[in-house]
Amino acid sequence: MKYGIIGAGAIGGYYGGLLARYGLDVHFLLHSDYLHVKKNGLVVESKNGNFVITEVMAYSRPEDMPLCDVAVIALKSTQNFQLSAILPLMLKTNGIVILLQNGIDIEKDIAAIMPDADIISGLCHVASNKIGPGHIRHMYHGLIALGEYLPGYNPAGITKNLKMISNEFKSAGIPVELSGNIGEIRWRKLVWNIPFNGLSVVLNSTTDKLMRHSAARRLIEDIMVEVIAGANKCGFFIEKKYANFMMKHSEHMDDYKTSMMLDFISGRQLEIDAIYWRAIAMAEKHGLLMPTVKALALQLEFLNKRKE
Amino acid sequence: MKYGIIGAGAIGGYYGGLLARYGLDVHFLLHSDYLHVKKNGLVVESKNGNFVITEVMAYSRPEDMPLCDVAVIALKSTQNFQLSAILPLMLKTNGIVILLQNGIDIEKDIAAIMPDADIISGLCHVASNKIGPGHIRHMYHGLIALGEYLPGYNPAGITKNLKMISNEFKSAGIPVELSGNIGEIRWRKLVWNIPFNGLSVVLNSTTDKLMRHSAARRLIEDIMVEVIAGANKCGFFIEKKYANFMMKHSEHMDDYKTSMMLDFISGRQLEIDAIYWRAIAMAEKHGLLMPTVKALALQLEFLNKRKE
Repeated sequence: MKYGIIGAGAIGGYYGGLLARYGLDVHFLLHSDYLHVKKNGLVVESKNGNFVITEVMAYSRPEDMPLCDVAVIALKSTQNFQLSAILPLMLKTNGIVILLQNGIDIEKDIAAIMPDADIISGLCHVASNKIGPGHIRHMYHGLIALGEYLPGYNPAGITKNLKMISNEFKSAGIPVELSGNIGEIRWRKLVWNIPFNGLSVVLNSTTDKLMRHSAARRLIEDIMVEVIAGANKCGFFIEKKYANFMMKHSEHMDDYKTSMMLDFISGRQLEIDAIYWRAIAMAEKHGLLMPTVKALALQLEFLNKRKE
Repeated sequence: MKYGIIGAGAIGGYYGGLLARYGLDVHFLLHSDYLHVKKNGLVVESKNGNFVITEVMAYSRPEDMPLCDVAVIALKSTQNFQLSAILPLMLKTNGIVILLQNGIDIEKDIAAIMPDADIISGLCHVASNKIGPGHIRHMYHGLIALGEYLPGYNPAGITKNLKMISNEFKSAGIPVELSGNIGEIRWRKLVWNIPFNGLSVVLNSTTDKLMRHSAARRLIEDIMVEVIAGANKCGFFIEKKYANFMMKHSEHMDDYKTSMMLDFISGRQLEIDAIYWRAIAMAEKHGLLMPTVKALALQLEFLNKRKE
């Protein structure tokens, strides 16, 4: 199977690098780092062992890539507007898309571009960064939660596709957890992402400072409760206690900077659409307003626009 | 009538100065500026004419003041905890308190301290600053909206007290507008203060920048609508169109820094209790949650505490 990795940043560089190291047929579509990686290879520093892919199959244009069986989308979701000009050129019509992005209800855009492809949707629980051109630093964690996507997030069960991809990823040293209900998994991740990503930017604060302040904790919990209500209204069961569980889980996160805070600091566009507006729209379609989430999204839009 | 002015900052210095200039018997309770004012007087720069009060009746301790007929409270509401140790020492038991502060439901604390006093409650529509010890700069506006307070904000009508104070203020050159329903007036001011004061601090932005950004405008309007709903639920009628009216009113405010933004920049405590929590509590008592206002209050608490 030929893999095409779209984007070689913190996610694509790390996981694509692991697949290539294992010896799979991996092709990277690069943008700003193309020349550097072509010449110097892809360098991955990881607590699980450093490695370098010296001969990277790197491309700067999708039309130069071979037709792949699997496309791994590892762009920030703010760049998804580019996919309609990429996927049809490098992925077989009935190929597999693996979408490694945060947020909710983003798969339908992929389905519109590649109607005959299968979509495997994933969430990465990983702390990694691109620290220079073609240079990835993996700090900790690494699990990918994967599930096959069906329109409307109808539960797909553990499909053949999923098992096959899971086997390849695991062989390459990537821990994988499979789910038959990726919609629920995405909403569960939002329970953490919506309060912490947004507040870390608006209040300019690492996770530990938020968790140590009683007012910030109250606000985080209020938002979590609102997101859980949204998920449940949309038909994805998340137990109320999950808010407490996520709070406890966040107690000992040190001075963790959320991905959105890192994006903000680096002047990158914030993933407000995928993480906020799509969740808000989904809940509203099912008759539930999420006023606190919406207020946070609007604050982020204000801060985001000012970075342009 | 003897006037005791509690605090000689932007409000007390400006209005107290005008009363003293007119020749009324005005006594100032000062804190950090006491020695400076005693020695150098009170300097007011104003677009309506500069003036200096050279012989200020200044005091550093309330027990040194003569018993006054009228106490003008011109402290930030964050300092109101001091009033129980001040008012009983310098105000006649059945005197008049004029409370010049933003916020809602703050009069009951004064009533608890001085149960036999009459309370005149006021909101200042003025742009003035203390720019140095005993040195006030008045930029523009100046109207005070005054109303007599009755427990539970029962409408008091235009009382004798109110007319008397109004006459003295007007004689001294202070524009006054009287109201028989100060509760409604306070809620109306909150419709502006709650969104603009809070967002100016959280988003670190002057009024014009907020008003020029579509997401910030949507958020401001959402908050205004929530505050109007709160007011109406508490029995103070504010028409829905008032949100549009206030938005239009804010279109041409240039790079205006709200009082809360100035407090924040100067490292002073923010008036979160008087402007936010009291409004939230009042609305909740009447059965209405204001989730967006509450989220903003919690964000302010987080930013406020960090300044200590």
